[in-house]
Amino acid sequence: MDFTGAHIVSIDQFERPDVEAVFSVADRMQPYALRQRVTRVLEGAILGNMFFEPSTRTRVSFGSAFNLLGGEVRETAGFESSALVKGESLQDTARVLSGFSDVICMRHPVEGSVADFASASRVPVLSGGDGANEHPTQALLDLYTIRKELADRGRSIDGLKIAMIGDLRFGRTVHSLGKLLRLYRDIEVVLISPEELSLPEDIVEAMRLSGIGVSISDHLTENIADVDIVYSTRIQEERFPSKQQADLYRGKFRLNQAIYTEYCQPNTVIMHPLPRDSRSDANELDSDLDNNPNLAIFRQTDNGVLVRMALFAMVLDVVDRVDAHAYDVRWYNARQT
Amino acid sequence: MDFTGAHIVSIDQFERPDVEAVFSVADRMQPYALRQRVTRVLEGAILGNMFFEPSTRTRVSFGSAFNLLGGEVRETAGFESSALVKGESLQDTARVLSGFSDVICMRHPVEGSVADFASASRVPVLSGGDGANEHPTQALLDLYTIRKELADRGRSIDGLKIAMIGDLRFGRTVHSLGKLLRLYRDIEVVLISPEELSLPEDIVEAMRLSGIGVSISDHLTENIADVDIVYSTRIQEERFPSKQQADLYRGKFRLNQAIYTEYCQPNTVIMHPLPRDSRSDANELDSDLDNNPNLAIFRQTDNGVLVRMALFAMVLDVVDRVDAHAYDVRWYNARQT
Amino acid sequence: MDFTGAHIVSIDQFERPDVEAVFSVADRMQPYALRQRVTRVLEGAILGNMFFEPSTRTRVSFGSAFNLLGGEVRETAGFESSALVKGESLQDTARVLSGFSDVICMRHPVEGSVADFASASRVPVLSGGDGANEHPTQALLDLYTIRKELADRGRSIDGLKIAMIGDLRFGRTVHSLGKLLRLYRDIEVVLISPEELSLPEDIVEAMRLSGIGVSISDHLTENIADVDIVYSTRIQEERFPSKQQADLYRGKFRLNQAIYTEYCQPNTVIMHPLPRDSRSDANELDSDLDNNPNLAIFRQTDNGVLVRMALFAMVLDVVDRVDAHAYDVRWYNARQT
Repeated sequence: MDFTGAHIVSIDQFERPDVEAVFSVADRMQPYALRQRVTRVLEGAILGNMFFEPSTRTRVSFGSAFNLLGGEVRETAGFESSALVKGESLQDTARVLSGFSDVICMRHPVEGSVADFASASRVPVLSGGDGANEHPTQALLDLYTIRKELADRGRSIDGLKIAMIGDLRFGRTVHSLGKLLRLYRDIEVVLISPEELSLPEDIVEAMRLSGIGVSISDHLTENIADVDIVYSTRIQEERFPSKQQADLYRGKFRLNQAIYTEYCQPNTVIMHPLPRDSRSDANELDSDLDNNPNLAIFRQTDNGVLVRMALFAMVLDVVDRVDAHAYDVRWYNARQT
Repeated sequence: MDFTGAHIVSIDQFERPDVEAVFSVADRMQPYALRQRVTRVLEGAILGNMFFEPSTRTRVSFGSAFNLLGGEVRETAGFESSALVKGESLQDTARVLSGFSDVICMRHPVEGSVADFASASRVPVLSGGDGANEHPTQALLDLYTIRKELADRGRSIDGLKIAMIGDLRFGRTVHSLGKLLRLYRDIEVVLISPEELSLPEDIVEAMRLSGIGVSISDHLTENIADVDIVYSTRIQEERFPSKQQADLYRGKFRLNQAIYTEYCQPNTVIMHPLPRDSRSDANELDSDLDNNPNLAIFRQTDNGVLVRMALFAMVLDVVDRVDAHAYDVRWYNARQT
Repeated sequence: MDFTGAHIVSIDQFERPDVEAVFSVADRMQPYALRQRVTRVLEGAILGNMFFEPSTRTRVSFGSAFNLLGGEVRETAGFESSALVKGESLQDTARVLSGFSDVICMRHPVEGSVADFASASRVPVLSGGDGANEHPTQALLDLYTIRKELADRGRSIDGLKIAMIGDLRFGRTVHSLGKLLRLYRDIEVVLISPEELSLPEDIVEAMRLSGIGVSISDHLTENIADVDIVYSTRIQEERFPSKQQADLYRGKFRLNQAIYTEYCQPNTVIMHPLPRDSRSDANELDSDLDNNPNLAIFRQTDNGVLVRMALFAMVLDVVDRVDAHAYDVRWYNARQT
C-alpha cells in the first residue's frame, strides 16, 4: 500500500506490512507525544477536522496529533444540517471543503458516507468513523496497544490469546479488531457475551477461515485464566430498541481486582475501547483496577495519538523529515514528573 | 480606499481601483493557496472568527485563509444566546471580543448587525454576512472568478455578458454581484427568473443608471446563446412563507450537459454560489456537468480563499511582506498530482 | 505556592505573595497582549480548552491568551453529553483528555467538577468556572484591574474602599473578590443590595474576621461618595425561581453620568464583571458612561488576557523564557492608532 496521498477509510485496505509500517512510524512519534521534543514539520499545513457527528475525544485526538506535527486545525463539531437541507450532495461538500485544507478527517453518522466523501475530495481523507460501519484508527490503536503491551512481556502479536467480552454484536471496535487479527499467526480468540449479543457470524467465519482459533462462551471467569488480553466492552445501549432491553445485559460481565487476582494471570493486560460505563448497574471495569499496572485503557487513548500522528505523517509523506524540524520542549512537562 | 485597518462590511465601500487592488493581491496569494509555498507573515496574529450563525463553509474558508498567512484562529460557531439573553448590547460584545484578537470576521443573522458591531470594535471587522443584507466577500469572489475565467479566454470584465438565473429576488449573491458590476463598462445582464422571483426593482434601476444593459425574461434556453457566463442560483426555500410556495419554482431553470451543448457557446462559464440543490425536483445544475471544464463552481469556492487572504493581508498591511516570510511546502501536495 | 505544574481551581489556593507574583508576571505580558511584540515561547504546546458549558468570552479569552504565548488550542464548546450518558466518570474523561494536551482549561456546570476533574488529570488544570462555585481567574482579573487603576492614581490595594452593588447573593464574582481582598490591609467594603440579595453571611463574617471593614446598605447614592471603586453587578436572573422575581430587583441601582457627577469622586473607578444588562428596565451602567475615562469595564476583560497569560506562563514554567523567543509585530496594530 502506498500511503502517500491515500484515503484511509477501511481496515480492509491494510495488509500486514502496512500495519507494521504504521506501527513503526508510531513508535518514532513517541518523543513528540511525550512532549520531550517538538517538531514543526507540518508548519503551515491545515487539517480539516470535519466531525459531522459529535465525538469530543476522537476529534481532539486527531486535532492534537496534527498539532503535534506542527500543523493547524480548522474544524466542525456537530451535524451540519444547513447544506444538506438545501439539497447539497456529500460529493459537493467534499469538493468545497477539500479546497480549504491539506488533509481531512471526517466522522459522519451514515454508513459509507466517509468513502463517498473521499471519492470527491481533492485531498486525502482519514475516517473518524462512519456510523456502525468502520473506525479504522480505533482498530489500529487497539492492535498497536496489544503489540506494545506484549512487547513489554517479551512477546509479539503472533501467538496472542485474547478474550473479547461484552456486547460483541453492536460494538464495532471488536468487529474491526477481529478483522485485523486475521493478518497474524497463531491467534486464539475467546468470545464472551450473552448469546443475543454474540459476534456476527460472518466475522467469526472470516476469522476462522484465516486460521484464527475461535471459541465462544457466555461465561467470564472460566475463560480468562490463560489469555494475554481481556478486552472488555460496554453494552451499546444506544443501538438497542429500548433502555429496558439493554438493561437485561448490563453488568453481566464485570471485572474487578478480586476477580482479576483469582482468575487472571498476574500480568494479563486489561483493555477497553472507552468510555467505560462506571455506573453501579454496569461497572464493567471496576475503579479498584485503576492502580493495576496491567490496566492499559488510558494507554490505549494515548496510543491513539501516536497512530494518528503516524498516519498523518505517512499520508503527507513527511516521515523522514519529522526529526529534521525538531527541537527540545522548553516548558514544564507534566509527563516526566 | 485605504485598506489598512479598515472594516469590510459592504460592497458599497468599493470603487473599481479598490476591487482591482484586491484582485491583484489575490493573484499573488495563489502559490500559498495551492500549497506550493508556505508563508508565516502573520505568525502570532489572531483572527476572531465569530460566526453567530452557523455556516461551515464560509467560516472554514475565512479560518483557512488566515492560517495560510501564518495566523491563528479562535472561533465561535453558533448563536451565542447567553450574553444577549442577559441584555448585553452588540457594541459591548464587540468591545470585549475585539480585545482578544487582531482582526475579526463576523456573521450574524440580523441585518445591519455587522456594521453595528464594527462601530464598537477596536480591531478591523470583515463581514461574513448579516442576514439578507450583505455578504461582500461572496460578491468579490464571484467577480474575481469571472475575471479569471474570462482572462483564460483572452477577455476582461469590461464587455461581459452574463445571465443570472433562478431566484433573483431572495438570492443576495446576485444582488451584490449586480451592484459590483456597475463599476465596469459595457456590461449586459440577462435576468432569467419567474416574474415573482425577479430582481428587486431598485437594483435593476441602479444597474441601468450606471450604464448596464439589463434585459428580463422568464425563459432560459432562448437567452443563454451568447452570454459569457451563466450564473445559476438556488430557490431560497428558507425565505419563502412555506415549502409549498418554494416548490412552485423549484426545477424551473435546469441546466444540464445536453442543454448546454445545444444552447450555450462551447466555452460559456457556469457559475453558482453553492450549495447547489441536487435533489431530483430541483437539480439546477445536473451532475453530468461535473466533467465540463467550464463548470467553475468549485473554482469559485477555491477563489474565496484567495480573496479572503487578500483582504486579511491588506487590512493588516502585510501585502509586501508575505513573500519575505515564505518557504517551499515540504509535505505531499495533493493539488499537484 | 509553587506554580509549576499546579492546578488552579480555587482562589483559596492563593496567599498574598502568590497573587502579587501573578500580577507581576501579568504586567510583563503587556507588550504581547498589546501586539507590540510576538512571543513563540509555547510554540508546539497544546491547550485543551474544555468548555462543557458555553461561555464565548471566557473560552476565547483563555484561548487567545495561549495563542499569544505561541501555543495551539484544541477545544470543546458545549455540553458533552455523550460520554456522560454512556456512564463515563469525570475522572476517566480527565485521564483521556489529559493525554492530548500540555495544560487544560475547564468549565463545567456542576460545582466541584473542576477539582474532581483535576484530581485525575495528568496535566495542569485551570478552572474556567464550575457552576456557582469558583471562577478564580475572574477574581484575579478583577483585583488586577483594581491594582492597576489605583496605581494610575498613585495608590495601592491596601487602603482600598470599594462599593459592591446589586445582586450580591447570586453574583459569584463578588464572593470571590471579597475573599481575595482578605489578603490586603485596611480594606473597607460597602455592600449595597436589596436585603434579599445580600452577600452570604459566611462571606461577610470571613471578611470581617480578616480585618475588612464591612458596611451594609440598600441605598446607592448615599454610599458612593468616598469610595475608590464602584463594582456594579447584574441581577443573575437565571438563578431566580422566576423572571418575575428577578424583575422585582432589576434596575434598582442604576449608575449613569449624572449620578456619577453628583455623587462620586471625579476619579472613582467603575467596574462590572460583564455582561452588563443594557435593557431599559435594567440599565445598571448607562451607556452615557461609555466615554467616562474612569469606566474600567473593558479594561477588565483586556486584563483577563494578561492574567491568563501569566497563569499559563507560570504553570508551564516559561516566565523567564517569554522574552527570549520574541520579535516585533509585523502587521497593522489597531491598538496603537
